[in-house]
Amino acid sequence: MTDNNTVTTLERIANLLRIHSIEATQASNSGHPTSCSSMAEITSVLFFNVMHYDPKDPRNPAADRFVLSKGHCAPILYAAWAEAGAFPVADLKNLRKIDSDLEGHPTPRLNFIDVATGSLGQGLGFACGMAYAGKYFDHSDYRVYCVLGDGECSEGSVWESFAFGSFYKLNNLCAIIDVNRLGQSDPTPLQHDTETYRKRVDAFGWHPIVVDGQNVNQLLAAFKEASELTDKPTCIIAKTFKGSGLKGIEDELDWHGKPLGDKAAENIAHLRALVDEATLVRPQIPKVTAKVPELKKDKQIKLSSPPNYDGKKEIATRLAHGTALEKLGKGCEYVIALDGDTKNSTFSIKFRDAFPNRFVECYIAEQNMVQVAIGIATRQRYISFVHTFAAFLIRAADQIRMGAISFTRVKYVGSHAGVSIGEDGPSQMALEDFAFFRTVPNIVCFYPSDAVSAERAVELAANYDGAVYIRTSRPNFQILYKNDEVFEIGKAKIVVESSNDVCTIVAGGVTLHEAIKASEKLKGLGKAVRIVDLFTVKPIDRDTILKAVNATQNRLLIVEDHYSEGGLGEAVMAALADQTNIKIAHLAVLEVARSGKPAELLSKYGIDAEHIANAVEKLL
Amino acid sequence: MTDNNTVTTLERIANLLRIHSIEATQASNSGHPTSCSSMAEITSVLFFNVMHYDPKDPRNPAADRFVLSKGHCAPILYAAWAEAGAFPVADLKNLRKIDSDLEGHPTPRLNFIDVATGSLGQGLGFACGMAYAGKYFDHSDYRVYCVLGDGECSEGSVWESFAFGSFYKLNNLCAIIDVNRLGQSDPTPLQHDTETYRKRVDAFGWHPIVVDGQNVNQLLAAFKEASELTDKPTCIIAKTFKGSGLKGIEDELDWHGKPLGDKAAENIAHLRALVDEATLVRPQIPKVTAKVPELKKDKQIKLSSPPNYDGKKEIATRLAHGTALEKLGKGCEYVIALDGDTKNSTFSIKFRDAFPNRFVECYIAEQNMVQVAIGIATRQRYISFVHTFAAFLIRAADQIRMGAISFTRVKYVGSHAGVSIGEDGPSQMALEDFAFFRTVPNIVCFYPSDAVSAERAVELAANYDGAVYIRTSRPNFQILYKNDEVFEIGKAKIVVESSNDVCTIVAGGVTLHEAIKASEKLKGLGKAVRIVDLFTVKPIDRDTILKAVNATQNRLLIVEDHYSEGGLGEAVMAALADQTNIKIAHLAVLEVARSGKPAELLSKYGIDAEHIANAVEKLL
Repeated sequence: MTDNNTVTTLERIANLLRIHSIEATQASNSGHPTSCSSMAEITSVLFFNVMHYDPKDPRNPAADRFVLSKGHCAPILYAAWAEAGAFPVADLKNLRKIDSDLEGHPTPRLNFIDVATGSLGQGLGFACGMAYAGKYFDHSDYRVYCVLGDGECSEGSVWESFAFGSFYKLNNLCAIIDVNRLGQSDPTPLQHDTETYRKRVDAFGWHPIVVDGQNVNQLLAAFKEASELTDKPTCIIAKTFKGSGLKGIEDELDWHGKPLGDKAAENIAHLRALVDEATLVRPQIPKVTAKVPELKKDKQIKLSSPPNYDGKKEIATRLAHGTALEKLGKGCEYVIALDGDTKNSTFSIKFRDAFPNRFVECYIAEQNMVQVAIGIATRQRYISFVHTFAAFLIRAADQIRMGAISFTRVKYVGSHAGVSIGEDGPSQMALEDFAFFRTVPNIVCFYPSDAVSAERAVELAANYDGAVYIRTSRPNFQILYKNDEVFEIGKAKIVVESSNDVCTIVAGGVTLHEAIKASEKLKGLGKAVRIVDLFTVKPIDRDTILKAVNATQNRLLIVEDHYSEGGLGEAVMAALADQTNIKIAHLAVLEVARSGKPAELLSKYGIDAEHIANAVEKLL
Repeated sequence: MTDNNTVTTLERIANLLRIHSIEATQASNSGHPTSCSSMAEITSVLFFNVMHYDPKDPRNPAADRFVLSKGHCAPILYAAWAEAGAFPVADLKNLRKIDSDLEGHPTPRLNFIDVATGSLGQGLGFACGMAYAGKYFDHSDYRVYCVLGDGECSEGSVWESFAFGSFYKLNNLCAIIDVNRLGQSDPTPLQHDTETYRKRVDAFGWHPIVVDGQNVNQLLAAFKEASELTDKPTCIIAKTFKGSGLKGIEDELDWHGKPLGDKAAENIAHLRALVDEATLVRPQIPKVTAKVPELKKDKQIKLSSPPNYDGKKEIATRLAHGTALEKLGKGCEYVIALDGDTKNSTFSIKFRDAFPNRFVECYIAEQNMVQVAIGIATRQRYISFVHTFAAFLIRAADQIRMGAISFTRVKYVGSHAGVSIGEDGPSQMALEDFAFFRTVPNIVCFYPSDAVSAERAVELAANYDGAVYIRTSRPNFQILYKNDEVFEIGKAKIVVESSNDVCTIVAGGVTLHEAIKASEKLKGLGKAVRIVDLFTVKPIDRDTILKAVNATQNRLLIVEDHYSEGGLGEAVMAALADQTNIKIAHLAVLEVARSGKPAELLSKYGIDAEHIANAVEKLL
């Protein structure tokens, strides 16, 4: 049992956090004080009794983790960290100001935030990744806590994470659902039906505990119960009230995302009386006691052996990717791979077979997979490579978007890009992957066109301190480069050239090989062309392209196994936008594709050698 | 009870469908015969006993619907339709050929397919949309059936759909999970644990029935039980075996997505003996008995009254959208709106308030919302407008991608685009929406910049026979157009011009208004500019842009509240790629944004009037 003094203190701190949430949102004239209020006791108990952490060293890798999945409650989270001593309480009033990192929703610009939240339903997956890393990679005792809103439990990604958490027996993970009954525009579908939440959580293999979420005693008991479980994660289903403790506001609709306005003063006065700050003695925050192993961090992560191809055998870049990943794993103990039940297609299976303890099978749940990868990659301890068909990676588009706001360094690897996959048909063909991935700020987008460059792409990806996308291909490709060829991010390669080239062709993957075939035909007609392999589509090697184009009578053809929007074509056009005098043609997929043999499809959609040769002739 | 003869016949048909699946995948040398085999009895029972439909009129709006969520089992679906008489059985061997519509995964190129599947976890949401339309819009007795794989039940979207189905008491909906234990690269996480499936389905409010999925009698009884429910949907959890009935293959790993090869002949011979086709009498397919109301379909859907703005009040395009949608609803009874608990922000609430029976609250589950919208829009009866923040629409990117392969005419409406939303911060700002939506073949992407054009965008969207994206904005904008201004898809407007313009500016939404401000400043400096409002970013009005640029000394500035990739800038550059002599500059958001006031953010990210004016001066 907990003594009365502790309980009373935590209740008073809860109200103090309410006050800060109201005042900060009054100052910013926007924000979500009522959603903060419902989780005031949960926050107070977690930050001032349950969690082991160091407010002065918030990214201590051995500390407990906290993820606020309902990111719109940032004000109360900031208030807790401020009251814990991470930064001055007075700064709370800078909420949402342009020169403050106390943004409307939490981002890792703040050193006490590991992952950005604010797009709902994502926090639990991040927390799963952290808990998986804690249990299986760090073999440590730190625990992971995640507060979810009830509204966001409608997101399927949440149930992907529930399934993941129980499958991997993440007993170091505790979710708390703040069941405050009200969404943005209406009551939530389940309102206060905590019994249905209990059944769902139980059916998904977690230990459910239903509590009065405004009751400190019940919360303390629940967190203790959670910490004693050995075989499954716990979910505390906390029945609360939106605007809890706020007169005329509690449990009322139409108070979502609104400061209290002229109801603020009265409520603050009432809460201040409950807090009596003059006599409030804040409890000691539990010290970090867990240990994490030290990881041998090399300055440069290297393939254990260089690419080794005989140059005659054709190899798929997806296979070379698997080979390289396995080689990286040999040299570097903090490289991790994840896959969504496609490992025998993406060839991440090569890594799994070599390092089964550093491979996470995520099954067919791409959103959670990406969330887990982002969670694993937090605090810069591990580097996660995520795999599935490129077409299905986009299932996690919103997670990848949020990953960018988290400044994650996850490496996304999408296989089976383009119509060149053949018979499986359009549902399996990524034709918009570059359009989406290119929008991620500071990402590197690799598009290797042979096995040698694919291996080097993986090596460069591991060393890049940011997000990466690698597009791999299904068909086998001829080897283009010598095994000792050196590759760099943002440096293109000229794969075909002569002194009298009349046109430059930029291509990638299957279309690069088609371009080479076309160049042979064109050469026979006395029309030599120069061919550029971009290697990275972002950043793009403007100089090499421009030099090539200028040397080839300012003619440029871009050809890609991608829709015409947002891919290689538009990337190159944008890079050359300030240039005049360049005549550009572009071949790309212009309609919904269909099933067929790869060669038939390349022809049908106008991106094979014949169409390339014709397009060059038309440009001349 | 069902007579023995019926049961025996359905068993024989099941084996006949197995044979077709094996033979078709042998012919194409690719495909998934083992995944087909596990669902052979389910398919036989549904298509030859349970479902009411007309093989000669497969899109009859009163017929029962069937959705194959596990789209890779297309061969057995095609076999069922062929055996039912929809097309010659001999055609089955054209599976996956480029000149056949019998693609690797089903698409509505076939008249008996309503929705494309093949990206897993989507079928149930489509089926929910169809069932919702049947129960609440058509008020009809037709039923909807959906077969899911067990592997795809890891997808969260499936659980969004389960939650939706029970919340709306879709007793006309029956899901069947083909629990065949094996995924692509490994056993599924739950393998044959049907009890856990039962608990999950029950907790999500459906009526669960566990059966031996290879047992025709049990299946018949289960479908009967399902048809008698009045208050909830049913989920039949069918324990099956992958490769069921195939010697040396049944229940074995490593047989995913592979034709039987040299094991085919022996298995076909064995199955043929069981079928004894010479004596097989196919049962009569149950006739369509349900009725659907006739909808008054106007050739032209019109706003009930034209835009009516006084030109002085500033209005947000999201509000004008809501106004227009309400006006459309007045004139047209088959316009439907959906929202994901943001209706008071997107202003779809105006439609909800006017037509509560045609509004579907989908809660915070964007994937299912889009799936429901696509399901509702099948068979061309209803036109669905889907709403949420543009940033969260991308949560359904894979659904929108599959919607394109379904040739859906859903209208996606994303509000709160760009940094101009202000204090909420980057998690709520869509800055990649156009990059993604522009890739959808044949989509129309509207970007209205004032209330008048926003209303007309909605009207044009409703009349367009294809997918549409409308980007609406949070801030209030000045009215730019007269109430009787006429708008067309693919026609830009010149909003500022003079006879001596020195540069053209292309902009949209908030940046268009910033450009106008900049033009006033520049005019004062004696530098007149021409300003183009694209209205539709796709298709793009190349002629108007080119004419403007040519008339303004071939100088062009594009400015957008979007990342630099894939938005207005690259769209315009691509349209002008064949032009030489044009000098282009581009202002866009180049990094992860942050919280702040809209004006501060426009300035910080370099897309406000001042930056525009400077960029123009630099171009001169």
